[in-house]
Amino acid sequence: MEDYGRFLALLVSALLVGFVSVVFSLVWVFQYREGLSWDGGTREFNWHPVLAVTGFVFIQGIAIIVYRLPWTWKCSKLFMKFIHAGLNTIAMILVIVSMVAVFDFHNAKNIPNMYSLHSWIGLTAVIFYSIQLFLGFAVFLLPFAPVPLRAALMPIHVYSGLIIFTTVIATALMGITEKLLFSLQNPSYSALPPEAIFVNCLGFLLVIFGALILWMASRSHWKRPPEKNVKILQPIGETPEGTEAESTMADGSNADKSDLRINSEAARNQNLKFDEAGQRSTM
Amino acid sequence: MEDYGRFLALLVSALLVGFVSVVFSLVWVFQYREGLSWDGGTREFNWHPVLAVTGFVFIQGIAIIVYRLPWTWKCSKLFMKFIHAGLNTIAMILVIVSMVAVFDFHNAKNIPNMYSLHSWIGLTAVIFYSIQLFLGFAVFLLPFAPVPLRAALMPIHVYSGLIIFTTVIATALMGITEKLLFSLQNPSYSALPPEAIFVNCLGFLLVIFGALILWMASRSHWKRPPEKNVKILQPIGETPEGTEAESTMADGSNADKSDLRINSEAARNQNLKFDEAGQRSTM
Repeated sequence: MEDYGRFLALLVSALLVGFVSVVFSLVWVFQYREGLSWDGGTREFNWHPVLAVTGFVFIQGIAIIVYRLPWTWKCSKLFMKFIHAGLNTIAMILVIVSMVAVFDFHNAKNIPNMYSLHSWIGLTAVIFYSIQLFLGFAVFLLPFAPVPLRAALMPIHVYSGLIIFTTVIATALMGITEKLLFSLQNPSYSALPPEAIFVNCLGFLLVIFGALILWMASRSHWKRPPEKNVKILQPIGETPEGTEAESTMADGSNADKSDLRINSEAARNQNLKFDEAGQRSTM
Repeated sequence: MEDYGRFLALLVSALLVGFVSVVFSLVWVFQYREGLSWDGGTREFNWHPVLAVTGFVFIQGIAIIVYRLPWTWKCSKLFMKFIHAGLNTIAMILVIVSMVAVFDFHNAKNIPNMYSLHSWIGLTAVIFYSIQLFLGFAVFLLPFAPVPLRAALMPIHVYSGLIIFTTVIATALMGITEKLLFSLQNPSYSALPPEAIFVNCLGFLLVIFGALILWMASRSHWKRPPEKNVKILQPIGETPEGTEAESTMADGSNADKSDLRINSEAARNQNLKFDEAGQRSTM
């Protein structure tokens, strides 16, 4: 791997910032907001920030870069797809529980649901995330989708994954803003008591975590290399279409522009057939 | 240009959504919040959302994709750099005025400054934006920076541009959340009066605008082609290092992986020299 040291430094930073964010969300609710329980009260609400930060931000972020970890490149592609899908499923479950906590709390306290921009954009993100998860399973994990469909959907899968992740962080920032304005009364948020400073810092950590994940996910030279049986025959710089190797923010169309080392058209066609076979073999 | 129709549809959508966002911000302050003036009161504050949406979201978004407009490809690279820098400078000026409006309003009303997460992240975005603008001028517009420095900084310039733009939208969403919670009292935000629905929709429009700009900015096949004098001699699929043609979310390192159509090492070296000259000529 090119720039292995830099990748490792960024990975450790991202893991650290993400982990500290989760710890901050726990300290917030235990130190300042009465802790956690499932009783229809504030302590039930508190599951919302903790599980949203843990699942929707931290675990989703790790799921995004999991293909890039160089020590997983010896594992089969199918295995890594299971890890990617598994992490996203765990995140989805935590998000659903975090939403149930809020609705439960609102209903118990007769607080209206779904009025704030936070709730509108948050629910939209959850809906798109579940569509993304379903289509990810159906198209990329199960062995039924034809290669052209995978190739066509992969750039959209990658792009929408990153947009959802980014939107989730923006939603978390709105949630923090709302919660601090609601719950800090005496002293108020504007007096900047320790809780306000602490939770503002949590917001900053979430932005830094997002920025680190997006940097790692968008460096094309940190992509997982194509499967070995494909690598031997494929054009230099090209990856089999529709595989995770395209997972950068860009659309992975560098393959279109790169030239072939083997210039004969026949060899090229032969390559494409093997690419397709290789692609299938990852199922 | 590949997919010209799709590009055009997305561009028109982005312009429309961005323009409607600006109109929404104006309708918000004129219809619901007493309009605009410069008197230290609420109407001075109102410049803040209007100028932030206009400058920091809409104009910055257009500045990001300005190189991609195919009808500008006949213009010189230097001219387009001036357009890109000019739009960002206009955005910067509007942002500064929008911040002065808030500080003025806060000071006149004895409201503390800089306590909210919105203000912390917003100010950070403004600081990074001004650094980005300064480095952009110094490294990419002025003709003094050596090519290796440009090449090294271009992926960072592109990435940080997109991260700042995304962070600005997240900041706007926090600002909307804050303002609606503060100003909607009877009926409150939770009763979802028309203003709340209207401004929530503005928040949604900003997210859609951001998503459209990020899609257009991250499709590598919609990049501005390299300058003609460079194109003739440069390797297929490769762009002169350190130019805007690398401006996708990815790091543009496909050039490293693509093979050369001219395989002789001597020809390659010759090409690199011409690339460099071509690069210089765009200054």
